[in-house]
Amino acid sequence: MDDPVLVEVLRGGLVESRHRGAAAVVDSEGATAFAVGDVARPVFPRSAVKPLQALPLIESGAADRYALSDEELALACASHSGEPAHVEGVARLLAKAGLDVSALACGTHWPSSQAAAFALAKTGAPSALHNNCSGKHAGFLCVARAMQIDHAGYWRPEHPVQLAVRAVLEDLTGATLSQACCAVDGCSVPTWAVPLTNLAHGFARFGSGRGLSTLRARAAARLRAACAQKPWYVAGTGRFCTEIMQLLGARVLVKTGAEGVFCGALPELGLGIAVKCDDGAGRAAEAIMAALIACFLPLSDREHAALARFARPTLRNWSGLEVGEMRVVEIGHATTYD
Amino acid sequence: MDDPVLVEVLRGGLVESRHRGAAAVVDSEGATAFAVGDVARPVFPRSAVKPLQALPLIESGAADRYALSDEELALACASHSGEPAHVEGVARLLAKAGLDVSALACGTHWPSSQAAAFALAKTGAPSALHNNCSGKHAGFLCVARAMQIDHAGYWRPEHPVQLAVRAVLEDLTGATLSQACCAVDGCSVPTWAVPLTNLAHGFARFGSGRGLSTLRARAAARLRAACAQKPWYVAGTGRFCTEIMQLLGARVLVKTGAEGVFCGALPELGLGIAVKCDDGAGRAAEAIMAALIACFLPLSDREHAALARFARPTLRNWSGLEVGEMRVVEIGHATTYD
Repeated sequence: MDDPVLVEVLRGGLVESRHRGAAAVVDSEGATAFAVGDVARPVFPRSAVKPLQALPLIESGAADRYALSDEELALACASHSGEPAHVEGVARLLAKAGLDVSALACGTHWPSSQAAAFALAKTGAPSALHNNCSGKHAGFLCVARAMQIDHAGYWRPEHPVQLAVRAVLEDLTGATLSQACCAVDGCSVPTWAVPLTNLAHGFARFGSGRGLSTLRARAAARLRAACAQKPWYVAGTGRFCTEIMQLLGARVLVKTGAEGVFCGALPELGLGIAVKCDDGAGRAAEAIMAALIACFLPLSDREHAALARFARPTLRNWSGLEVGEMRVVEIGHATTYD
Repeated sequence: MDDPVLVEVLRGGLVESRHRGAAAVVDSEGATAFAVGDVARPVFPRSAVKPLQALPLIESGAADRYALSDEELALACASHSGEPAHVEGVARLLAKAGLDVSALACGTHWPSSQAAAFALAKTGAPSALHNNCSGKHAGFLCVARAMQIDHAGYWRPEHPVQLAVRAVLEDLTGATLSQACCAVDGCSVPTWAVPLTNLAHGFARFGSGRGLSTLRARAAARLRAACAQKPWYVAGTGRFCTEIMQLLGARVLVKTGAEGVFCGALPELGLGIAVKCDDGAGRAAEAIMAALIACFLPLSDREHAALARFARPTLRNWSGLEVGEMRVVEIGHATTYD
């Protein structure tokens, strides 16, 4: 089935590039409030489900046992930019569980923050702490320590930590996570393909607590509060997730995933959102997510204008000349930006 | 009209992302040897036509007057990585015309080469010399100087240098470049949207000299020889254009453009190639170009295996684990990689 074009990239008066995709907005009972494209096709959510993957960190008692701060909980939900305070926060998280960088199995890459990468390159090279997933991995390690089990191989599908993560994902999304839909994520943990409707349903429940056990609903509320309080730790300077949550606070939780995935929750409305850009483009997934938030969430004029910067960005070249724009199409209310 | 999926990105056993696009392979008489997708829709070729845009550099007499080397001519055709020898080469090109960096209007960005960016960040900041288009701009400036006209505003559509470039593009592609299909490129010069069949035809003529004036055919041959001799100067370390031309020498000329465009010539066959990935993804455009070269050009086993690295790359994560692959579909002969 062909997904429709959801984002057009214009240069001058012509469409230069186009992004197809699908998106679902679902309430906590599983009813679809909005859907476009094939929302039943399984999609690897990648890092977009990190807030859900962090639930065992609370539920296992690890967060209390190690007295984790909001910053540290936000890092466990993060795809961070590898800026100094991110890296220090993850090191602190590990230290609280009696571990250090050597326990991380996420692999190493340079910070996505150019400023952080340049500063680091002057004196050294990145470690696994700089990996955008290091906070999530530190969280997994805390869970293993709190469960008093061997943390070696904590990233493998059969390890008790990943089994706990999988059970949480199945509970929230209502999807069966079978071997056939399992692949290896960029940081080596399992990623399971799940339909967008299920992902959106999972985020509706995560955002509202409805349909979850009391323990799980409380855990979700704690993670949401941590992300709303410390959104810089969920992404980083100038990043979409950080800026949206700085703008809208606890009224929205958004989380990016690789290959054009975006998930989010609008807790006050009890809605969850899941977006997949077919070609994997993050620029389009961000614009779609911004447009969907603007569709559903009551916004002040200031907030609406701030979101427009993401939903309908002006494109400039290296000399600062305006050369075009991006626009979201096929999402009804998004025409508020027309 | 819907372009077909030409590239699939697999994670585990599932397709995670998919890229649609169009491609044309045309001979020097304008006959289509292969076409997929909407090859009649105008596409901004962006930097993919730099070798064509460099023709006035030869035809104006500037290349002889300033005794330009193969390295300098390759830089005039380049989207370079901003590595030290690129930057030095462009400075030399400008100096030969009695100019310096202050004459460049391409704007400034950090080198795309991470190593070059890190080295530069240790001591300073980029200048317009580091812009990937600085060699093309230096070439334009040489043309203005050789024409003995004011080089100020050399990047504007109405400047004699851009009028000369436009006339060359119209001659080679056979397309009429009207205001309606004109936009501003990343480096501020005009970019005209042209159908892929016309772009491929233009590259067939550029590669073979057929259908061109003797002067123009000679100019094209000189630029082709420069790129074949010095492919590192056309892109940079580890880049697709450089590696393909290092592998295949004068048998192929390939040039990348922003937003998923690729153009190329197979001179010994008299064929031109033009590719546009609808969503602007460079990874897909590269894979399609590699597959098309493998379809048409007679290759040794070693060359075929080397191209497979681009046409069907294995995808690994930050820990080096194999997580998936990219594969080209819908391009008949590309199944030689199945």
